[in-house]
Amino acid sequence: MVNDIMGKNLVLENIRHQLKLKDLNAFIQPRRDMYGGEEVPDYDERLKFLSGFTGSAGIAIVTIDKAILFIDGRYVLQAKIELDENWEILSLSEDSIIKWLEENLCNKQSIGYDPWLMRANEVIKLKEKLIYKEIIFEAQEVNLIDHIWTDRSPIKQNDPIKWPSKFFGLESEKKIFSLTQKMKTKDIDAIIITQPNQLSWLLNIRGSDLDCTPLFLGFGLLTVDGTLKIFSRINKKILNNVNKKFINHSFKKLVSYISNFKNKKISVNPFYCPSIIYEAMKVNNIVIEDNFLFLQSMVTIKNSVEIAFIKNCHKRDGAALVKFLFWLEHNISLQKISEYDASIKLKEFRSQDKNFISESFNTIAASGSNGAIVHYRPSKIKSKIIETKDIFLLDSGGQYFDGTTDITRTISFSEQPQRIKNYYTFVLKSHISLAKLIFHNETCGNELDAIARSVLWEQGLDYDHGTGHGVGYGLGVHEFPPIISRRKSEPLQNGQLLSNEPGYYVPNKFGIRLENLMIVEKVNSIKPNNFLKFLTVSLCHFEMNLINKNLLNKDEIIWINEYHDDVYSNLKEFLTKEEKKWLKSKTTRIPL
Amino acid sequence: MVNDIMGKNLVLENIRHQLKLKDLNAFIQPRRDMYGGEEVPDYDERLKFLSGFTGSAGIAIVTIDKAILFIDGRYVLQAKIELDENWEILSLSEDSIIKWLEENLCNKQSIGYDPWLMRANEVIKLKEKLIYKEIIFEAQEVNLIDHIWTDRSPIKQNDPIKWPSKFFGLESEKKIFSLTQKMKTKDIDAIIITQPNQLSWLLNIRGSDLDCTPLFLGFGLLTVDGTLKIFSRINKKILNNVNKKFINHSFKKLVSYISNFKNKKISVNPFYCPSIIYEAMKVNNIVIEDNFLFLQSMVTIKNSVEIAFIKNCHKRDGAALVKFLFWLEHNISLQKISEYDASIKLKEFRSQDKNFISESFNTIAASGSNGAIVHYRPSKIKSKIIETKDIFLLDSGGQYFDGTTDITRTISFSEQPQRIKNYYTFVLKSHISLAKLIFHNETCGNELDAIARSVLWEQGLDYDHGTGHGVGYGLGVHEFPPIISRRKSEPLQNGQLLSNEPGYYVPNKFGIRLENLMIVEKVNSIKPNNFLKFLTVSLCHFEMNLINKNLLNKDEIIWINEYHDDVYSNLKEFLTKEEKKWLKSKTTRIPL
Repeated sequence: MVNDIMGKNLVLENIRHQLKLKDLNAFIQPRRDMYGGEEVPDYDERLKFLSGFTGSAGIAIVTIDKAILFIDGRYVLQAKIELDENWEILSLSEDSIIKWLEENLCNKQSIGYDPWLMRANEVIKLKEKLIYKEIIFEAQEVNLIDHIWTDRSPIKQNDPIKWPSKFFGLESEKKIFSLTQKMKTKDIDAIIITQPNQLSWLLNIRGSDLDCTPLFLGFGLLTVDGTLKIFSRINKKILNNVNKKFINHSFKKLVSYISNFKNKKISVNPFYCPSIIYEAMKVNNIVIEDNFLFLQSMVTIKNSVEIAFIKNCHKRDGAALVKFLFWLEHNISLQKISEYDASIKLKEFRSQDKNFISESFNTIAASGSNGAIVHYRPSKIKSKIIETKDIFLLDSGGQYFDGTTDITRTISFSEQPQRIKNYYTFVLKSHISLAKLIFHNETCGNELDAIARSVLWEQGLDYDHGTGHGVGYGLGVHEFPPIISRRKSEPLQNGQLLSNEPGYYVPNKFGIRLENLMIVEKVNSIKPNNFLKFLTVSLCHFEMNLINKNLLNKDEIIWINEYHDDVYSNLKEFLTKEEKKWLKSKTTRIPL
Repeated sequence: MVNDIMGKNLVLENIRHQLKLKDLNAFIQPRRDMYGGEEVPDYDERLKFLSGFTGSAGIAIVTIDKAILFIDGRYVLQAKIELDENWEILSLSEDSIIKWLEENLCNKQSIGYDPWLMRANEVIKLKEKLIYKEIIFEAQEVNLIDHIWTDRSPIKQNDPIKWPSKFFGLESEKKIFSLTQKMKTKDIDAIIITQPNQLSWLLNIRGSDLDCTPLFLGFGLLTVDGTLKIFSRINKKILNNVNKKFINHSFKKLVSYISNFKNKKISVNPFYCPSIIYEAMKVNNIVIEDNFLFLQSMVTIKNSVEIAFIKNCHKRDGAALVKFLFWLEHNISLQKISEYDASIKLKEFRSQDKNFISESFNTIAASGSNGAIVHYRPSKIKSKIIETKDIFLLDSGGQYFDGTTDITRTISFSEQPQRIKNYYTFVLKSHISLAKLIFHNETCGNELDAIARSVLWEQGLDYDHGTGHGVGYGLGVHEFPPIISRRKSEPLQNGQLLSNEPGYYVPNKFGIRLENLMIVEKVNSIKPNNFLKFLTVSLCHFEMNLINKNLLNKDEIIWINEYHDDVYSNLKEFLTKEEKKWLKSKTTRIPL
């Protein structure tokens, strides 16, 4: 992506020219579209155009003589490959950007930003922290990158997907009614919905603009009387066809529309709201309620209909994965199969399901050392042949009408050294420790994270990513706030859907990750009723050839045996006779 | 303590009279002296005078028609006994007081407080949160309680203790030098030390005003040139005898003295600083550095000399406890021994040590159901005879020239039901899980807390107190910030000393708690060197008769056996022949 001629970086030169034109000392560009989602349409991949970085999270700052990319641990190896020498890579943390700006900007210098891309709380915090340096923050009407990005993809929004309504569980009208009832108790006049997953869920509508996430891209403004205005790029009439009550406007109208609510009380989440919307609310003297999280809870806490569908969906998804693994094991020594070929074949197996929509993210099919690149993605052009001597890490998932899946297995085609088996077993022990945990309902995600890691810590091992993330229902494969990671977070809640994915990686050598999705459930057998546990919904066997049984305790063996019984009994109806026989052998009970 | 005549509470009536005189709507009284320590001199026990509550933490609010005591879970049972029906007991949390004031005060009402007792951050937060109600906060020159407390103990400060200097590890001058060097790197002109443990540690001086904590009670003002001004109630000359460089003033002078530092940069910790000092700094345009924690780290991270002494001290303390337990087991069926008698006898054993100063807190000797009162304290007047049929919880510690101890054992004199044994064993498993944990050096206290609890959670059990607290060196038995509890906290650090004390309690039935102190250590065998572990320093056997060995796994049995080997080999030199024989039998290895 980078136009690199003899060490010069033309994109950077062009951006610096823009800085001079606008009389700015710096420009800040997050990897994000105005909806703040993890996956963004091609026409909004500004950070990729600017830097060449293709990861899902990062923030760049460009000044006249520096170009910095802030990224987290997952992407360090990848970014070093993708960026040229004009870029410096720094660790992304809450304070690292502020610290960098403090040290690299002079007093009274100015920094430009795109107020549709930067979130309200980010701009507020930056301004607060840099007030002593009198740094000027200048919202740009047009993003600096848009001035220079000539071969940008067409900017358009596709029609919503036709989605069988039975899968939504609850009619949109009922969802809206519950929400407005709750708004009344808090005297909230309106709520601005800036997160497309919340809008999609509330409206029972799904879009097709993103490759792996069926979000309907738009903002919503729901008044307490139940009127819902939508602000999107879609044709007005089309949305009206989905539901006559939906009134659609161009998203640009939202800012001016806010002036209708002068002095009213409106709820918005400043952690996800574009800065431009928040500023418009302040200009209009709107009382901002920034902690009304009822809609967020409705979305992240799955209702009983959704949970039933999720369980079903995971059976068919598990069967597709087992079929693929059966195919792979039987073909790997007969033909050359690249990581990319494998990802295509796996998608084929998933596609056979009538409810399948798309992958839920780009499959990570990583042979040997590629497994250590946590967010590796094989491409058609650049992809390794899967080596039978190496272990193979496969992280993939699907979007279905009845749920979103995300599962990782690490498999082996040959006898591996004891060392590799031990690492695999410790990762599996870590996975099991969380899967069978009973925990108090006040336990926070970072506390659960420590519990899962402690099994690896005992061996001096660790991994530089979270242990689990929330997962949407036919929505984003990463759904927040539910999270199990080092990041300080809130207690998990009954009904949330999360991943359980500890790992272990040795750069340039190999990677191991084992991931299932789990639903948070109440433990009814204990009184008082304030304990929670996880119900694992993902279904696929673990790699018996990589387990060192001597490292497992009795409870862990029981867990594996019961899980494998579940895998076989739930998947067998979807499998051929040969596949069944094969799965049976893969799920043989470990003797106690 | 409460003058209760026919349902009327005269103390409350008197305070309400004061409210009217001062034209206040409410008065807020924490259980605290101006130094903010856990133990306070009798003359500062205002909350006890006001309410009758004798616990170590709580905040009262009295209005014209309400009297509320906010306390944490540890003290609920106790407060219900100590308070009369004029008081309402509410749960103490960061926000519960604010919420109560929001709901119970009208707009523009006023609340009085003692600015020497309320901390800066508390007043700032209250003002901030109640600004929308225009609540007026009025600092009282004289505490309202002081107006009505006629039989108050004499207000005086005792002379410092003569403390052999070899135990301090580092000369005061050297400590001050390190501190001022660090101040220079941060351009700090002075530091106001408001925590007596920090002042005592820095000056190598100890006081004798508190029963169980040899703190020197005073404030310090250290300028970057090394000049240290002390503000205390002590006679000026006396302190000069300890160290000629110490310049002592009356503590009241501190507020006016601050005006000498107009426009300078001074470090203070607003979480511990009395509000009156912070306000004086603001009035004088002082740049407040509120995050310079170097002295705090110096105190809480024990140096190598301190660690060597701590280990030694714990051997002699463990021996005293073993001698007591030997005596108790041999006398319990021969004579009636009350909980109070036991606590006196235990103190006698500890007192025989030449380095012994005092108990480190009032011994919790709790038979049967009293064990469920987490901070129970038997008194001469009110104390139960220890029943041989019940389990007996004993939580005690000593202050020595060479360290502070804190240890809990739960013992049995008779065969207990399987249920009790199982509870004991699960608490022990929880204790062991922490004692033998290896953890990443970024792990926070609340994450370690969850790891320790998870063993109990698995059985649906839990406890309503922290798992561990920091411990001082010949200073407070509770030393913060190191903590292992549900409260969000910072990562532990190499050299900190903490308790490990999970428990299980059934109100009105019994209590089990098992506590040792541990030093945080680096794990040198793992590279990279970023893992920590604990070294247990407390030495006393666990109750073999209460262990259900079938519930233990191999690693746990190994841990117990090795710990018991350590107990015997370290204590035997202090014991008589009979005691040795007895301890040998108590530490018999569990067969694997």
